[in-house]
Amino acid sequence: MDDHAVTLPPASEFDAGTAVERIADRRWRGDVSPDWTVFGGAPNGGYLQAMALRAVRGELTKPHPLTSTSHFLTTCESGPAEIDVEVLRTGRRHETAVATVHQADGERLRVTAIFGDLDAADGPTWDGAEPPAIPPLDECIAAPLDIDLPPVVRRFDVRLNPAHVGWLVNQPSGRAEMAGWLRFADGREPDVAALPLFADALPPVAFNVLDRLSWVPTLELTVHVRARPATGWLRCVFRSRGLVGGYHEEDGEIWDAEDRLVAVTRQLALARS
Amino acid sequence: MDDHAVTLPPASEFDAGTAVERIADRRWRGDVSPDWTVFGGAPNGGYLQAMALRAVRGELTKPHPLTSTSHFLTTCESGPAEIDVEVLRTGRRHETAVATVHQADGERLRVTAIFGDLDAADGPTWDGAEPPAIPPLDECIAAPLDIDLPPVVRRFDVRLNPAHVGWLVNQPSGRAEMAGWLRFADGREPDVAALPLFADALPPVAFNVLDRLSWVPTLELTVHVRARPATGWLRCVFRSRGLVGGYHEEDGEIWDAEDRLVAVTRQLALARS
Repeated sequence: MDDHAVTLPPASEFDAGTAVERIADRRWRGDVSPDWTVFGGAPNGGYLQAMALRAVRGELTKPHPLTSTSHFLTTCESGPAEIDVEVLRTGRRHETAVATVHQADGERLRVTAIFGDLDAADGPTWDGAEPPAIPPLDECIAAPLDIDLPPVVRRFDVRLNPAHVGWLVNQPSGRAEMAGWLRFADGREPDVAALPLFADALPPVAFNVLDRLSWVPTLELTVHVRARPATGWLRCVFRSRGLVGGYHEEDGEIWDAEDRLVAVTRQLALARS
Repeated sequence: MDDHAVTLPPASEFDAGTAVERIADRRWRGDVSPDWTVFGGAPNGGYLQAMALRAVRGELTKPHPLTSTSHFLTTCESGPAEIDVEVLRTGRRHETAVATVHQADGERLRVTAIFGDLDAADGPTWDGAEPPAIPPLDECIAAPLDIDLPPVVRRFDVRLNPAHVGWLVNQPSGRAEMAGWLRFADGREPDVAALPLFADALPPVAFNVLDRLSWVPTLELTVHVRARPATGWLRCVFRSRGLVGGYHEEDGEIWDAEDRLVAVTRQLALARS
């Protein structure tokens, strides 16, 4: 036996699924995994954003995506993707960059982000938010794993507020809200890199106001990261003020196990008739 | 006298200030006006976004910026600016494009937007929002025009909720909220093109929680347009959940005179110590 043998722990599903490698100057390659797709086979938008941000991070010196925005163009397919990174600005506090994600026949999404260092933020602090009122973990509803669920659902351990699951049995609550407890199914702890994914991990809030479930694609997703999450469960709440001809915002808060608001998120989504 | 003489009304301040002309294929020129600057001489971010979107609109067939996001890189100066437009996608419902705004020594901001047609939106509708509770117009506080105000303030008729103006006399309210009535000072009626400007037109919400006023630059601004505003006053409310080392979101709602939520807005801003 080799005294120097080291058994590396297997990469988490998230780290393996969003892995990227540098193949040229400011050009990266990733593999869009079928393990992160939603109904219909399209990869989860937050997953794609998290992958693109790993490439961006590799070109910058600042660690944290303070704000990142994806504009989704066409549906990604499972398989290789190239990510070109353009650095727009390198400042003392902030670095701004754009990632262009493309597959064989064209661009699939564009991600623009401002990176900074949360640990170096020295401006004023004021706290005006309360953690969401979500029932205790053991009163919340886990996904029924014995039915045919899209692969992305199995990547998470989600426990939804029981008041928000009526759509599962064709009894939508009538309020565009979805809240619950959230963590990775494989035990990987949350971090800043995973927050854009968690921002898109719960079922659409529109499910609680639609007569029947329909595809609710994300057109644009913006995630503001405010703090590095602590170890443990996250609590998330997503809400919309209203749907106008299907268009609606989905506003999210992500709170960590130490009652800190770690991210605020918003997406523009479209519920189809 | 020429029977065919037509006296065109003078362009509104907004239309004149955001005018752009096409100077080459997908290249436009605008003039950043000193009339839209804030304290310190920097142009208002919403103004720059509105100008960039006029160039984008000129390259597209869809009329409405359903979502538009600016990433601000370096401060624009008053004077000419070139706006390069890249069209990323032209679909049946949506067109996505990027505007790169540059002046002599480099890029100043990048605007990414998805245009569509609100009048053609045929998805489901659900209304879950209430107009903000703002006191009647005659109980709200107009800007004191006899003091030295930055030029942009004079472009608007703003009437702030009296509960939110304590910062003017060094008595901040202690809640990061700013609400009021808003319209153009020259009587121009609101429209979709002006909503990104209105999204950035009130004083920073941070003024109501800071010990002393400081510069609060916008790093990123995203505006979701939900409806074409009716003629008349707008009511706006902006709030933040909290400042962490200075970083905070500023979430806005813009309501029209017919009690319709016409835009939801969010910016990432940084309050300096």
